Amino acid sequence: MTIRRLSIYTRCLLQLEEDGVKTVSSQELAERFNLNSAQVRKDLAYFGEFGVRGIGYYVAGLKAELQRILGLDREWAVVLVGFGNLGSALFHYKGFTRQGFKVVAIVDENPTKIGREVERVPVIASRDMAREVKARGIQIAILAVPVEAAQAVTDELVAAGIRAVLNFAPTRLRVPRDVRLNNVDLSIELETLSFYLAKSAR
Amino acid sequence: MTIRRLSIYTRCLLQLEEDGVKTVSSQELAERFNLNSAQVRKDLAYFGEFGVRGIGYYVAGLKAELQRILGLDREWAVVLVGFGNLGSALFHYKGFTRQGFKVVAIVDENPTKIGREVERVPVIASRDMAREVKARGIQIAILAVPVEAAQAVTDELVAAGIRAVLNFAPTRLRVPRDVRLNNVDLSIELETLSFYLAKSAR
Repeated sequence: MTIRRLSIYTRCLLQLEEDGVKTVSSQELAERFNLNSAQVRKDLAYFGEFGVRGIGYYVAGLKAELQRILGLDREWAVVLVGFGNLGSALFHYKGFTRQGFKVVAIVDENPTKIGREVERVPVIASRDMAREVKARGIQIAILAVPVEAAQAVTDELVAAGIRAVLNFAPTRLRVPRDVRLNNVDLSIELETLSFYLAKSAR
Repeated sequence: MTIRRLSIYTRCLLQLEEDGVKTVSSQELAERFNLNSAQVRKDLAYFGEFGVRGIGYYVAGLKAELQRILGLDREWAVVLVGFGNLGSALFHYKGFTRQGFKVVAIVDENPTKIGREVERVPVIASRDMAREVKARGIQIAILAVPVEAAQAVTDELVAAGIRAVLNFAPTRLRVPRDVRLNNVDLSIELETLSFYLAKSAR
């Protein structure tokens, strides 16, 4: 099962829990959230221990188990590098906090930003980045810097102990094998839309 | 084959073309771009007509075919709704333009922004949105508005003729069956990272 689908199920279960739903069948889950019902049935079969024959799954129990697998049962300190439009948008993105990701330091080059605090999070200079990452034991970095700066920043982060990078710069970064790298390419999302529009026009 | 993988292959082929590579085998493609080699071989087998036995695939021909399938052989006019930090970051995101998506109108509520032009693209008021979408025959909308506004804006866009919505507001929107909706949930990307960190800590 892909990690992505685990994430999506977790999200759906959180929503059901908020709505006060106690148990759910794989078919109900698929219908309510527009998922592939055969796929959901197959995926959730791995979690049989949270199921009740003829009824479905315990929402709270299954959710907690998926969160544990995804590492969402704890808080992760995150360093956000780059505080332009994108960095600022990511900082204020509600979804991160909700899932236990907490930006504890913002790094930027702009002297007018350095030394400020944004919602109690300090904006520090690039030259202080490595020290801060080490001192706080930060393992995850979000990269929202220009393409030209991305590789150098990554190298420095990795040397300072970062083990996972979420990269928004549209460039291919090199990292050591034991560092996880996720590239977010926003245009892929638009392309699945143009695919359907083009198909229906044919 | 998922549309997402088609997008990724297209991107890799574009890169190879820029590097002056004329032909590529599925194994080379997989190695160079860190993809699953069995999956690449299986996927590309659909495009046998662009292959040369013992050599691989013609980069230019295969790329053009994938672009045609993805609807990237034409320009798509896009309306961007919401011009705060995220909207602004998306507007300047290079990846969209490179793939043929052109923001032709920006919609915002802020009176200090309305009437301005950003790189020759006009910022218009919400009350003029529907008229502009109709007049220009815009089919794709990018939504970067607050959660509270997202459903109302979507309803208005759909009524005005929008057929595909890329939604960044972290909420579940309702659209008619014939309208495509893609939700971008940025925290899913962080969760695949925490999964690996948590796994290696166990």
